[in-house]
Amino acid sequence: MSHNETHLKSSDFISDIVIGMSDGLTVPFALAAGLSSAVQSNGLIITAGIAEIIAGSIAMGLGGYLAGRTALDHYKSELAREYQETIDFPETEKKEVKDIFEEMGLSEATQNMAVEELSKDTNKWVKFMMKYELGLEEPDKNKARKSAFNIGMSYIVGGAIPMLAYVFTSDPQSGFKFSFIVTVVCLLVFGYFKSKLTGQKPIIGALKVMAIGVIAAMSAYFLVRLFNS
Amino acid sequence: MSHNETHLKSSDFISDIVIGMSDGLTVPFALAAGLSSAVQSNGLIITAGIAEIIAGSIAMGLGGYLAGRTALDHYKSELAREYQETIDFPETEKKEVKDIFEEMGLSEATQNMAVEELSKDTNKWVKFMMKYELGLEEPDKNKARKSAFNIGMSYIVGGAIPMLAYVFTSDPQSGFKFSFIVTVVCLLVFGYFKSKLTGQKPIIGALKVMAIGVIAAMSAYFLVRLFNS
Repeated sequence: MSHNETHLKSSDFISDIVIGMSDGLTVPFALAAGLSSAVQSNGLIITAGIAEIIAGSIAMGLGGYLAGRTALDHYKSELAREYQETIDFPETEKKEVKDIFEEMGLSEATQNMAVEELSKDTNKWVKFMMKYELGLEEPDKNKARKSAFNIGMSYIVGGAIPMLAYVFTSDPQSGFKFSFIVTVVCLLVFGYFKSKLTGQKPIIGALKVMAIGVIAAMSAYFLVRLFNS
Repeated sequence: MSHNETHLKSSDFISDIVIGMSDGLTVPFALAAGLSSAVQSNGLIITAGIAEIIAGSIAMGLGGYLAGRTALDHYKSELAREYQETIDFPETEKKEVKDIFEEMGLSEATQNMAVEELSKDTNKWVKFMMKYELGLEEPDKNKARKSAFNIGMSYIVGGAIPMLAYVFTSDPQSGFKFSFIVTVVCLLVFGYFKSKLTGQKPIIGALKVMAIGVIAAMSAYFLVRLFNS
């Protein structure tokens, strides 16, 4: 195992936090920017921001949790099916293993030896089919649950950052200015770490995460103004 | 190639539409529900909804597009690196191939034959390392771009559904009631198709998608009321 697996070494916890925060920063920031061009009171922007943060964190957290559960159910049902298929259709299953080795570029003789060796041990055989035919590895149930929770909570923290500027200013225009400065800085910082954790170039990654937030916010600002004029 | 690959047969276009719509239905629906417990005018809810739909569709569409570009860059740089490594460290790379065959459960003799055969052809060798060591397959640039566009546009259409109820009613309470009924029906329908397309049980999948939307909306409704009381 060599180079680009750096991201596996970094803690899942840190990775979830950074992903949740950089996503949480974007939509509430842009929503508030859009509203700041249309309403006269910071109270309304804060109320909408709270509603969005609740909605987004539940959609992301609960959605992630249920997706994890679904992946585990799917893995279990496919596993049972593969075991059954080695009993019901052993020749078809052997042919599928052989096809995978052929696709890798091995010779006919080596393909046959490999198939022979794998099919002697049903556990190895099924594990091979799960991983290399179906591309499935056993999902970790607890990890999915923790990950969903951490991403959801970080979305709340990330979403609170652009909203705080509206709490500490007295009108939407100043709120928007402060929110913009603070959020752009945070998007750059979180984009930088997010890219490092996922093995991308950190400075380019930081600029991309920042650009998505700024484009979303500016679009919301000008389009809401257009709709309301 | 057998059973659970049904989802690959369904058109990517339909799949993107259904995913974008069922996600688009959730957050704008819950945002509007939250606001309906706090504001007196449908105009404000619609303005916030427009801002959210712009923000969410750009974050999802542009975010997806840039993630696709990043994946392609990452693939290309890893590919160049693997080619270089077969020149600079051929023995290390052979050992990595051998380890993968060992992990599959093949005998020492078959591992050696397989390594010998693969390393004779640099293209096959590198392709093997990309796929089986790094788990990378060449991303389709055009597909990622189209997919991001389709998901972003469907998010807009999905988001418009819960908002229309506020356009056609005169106060937030009636808006919320109609929005709730229409959106729950749509979440069930899109959740059903989403689950079918991703190879899950469609009825359970429909109920999960609906539950996420309803829990997000009810949480936003009651928590916003709590914050404002």
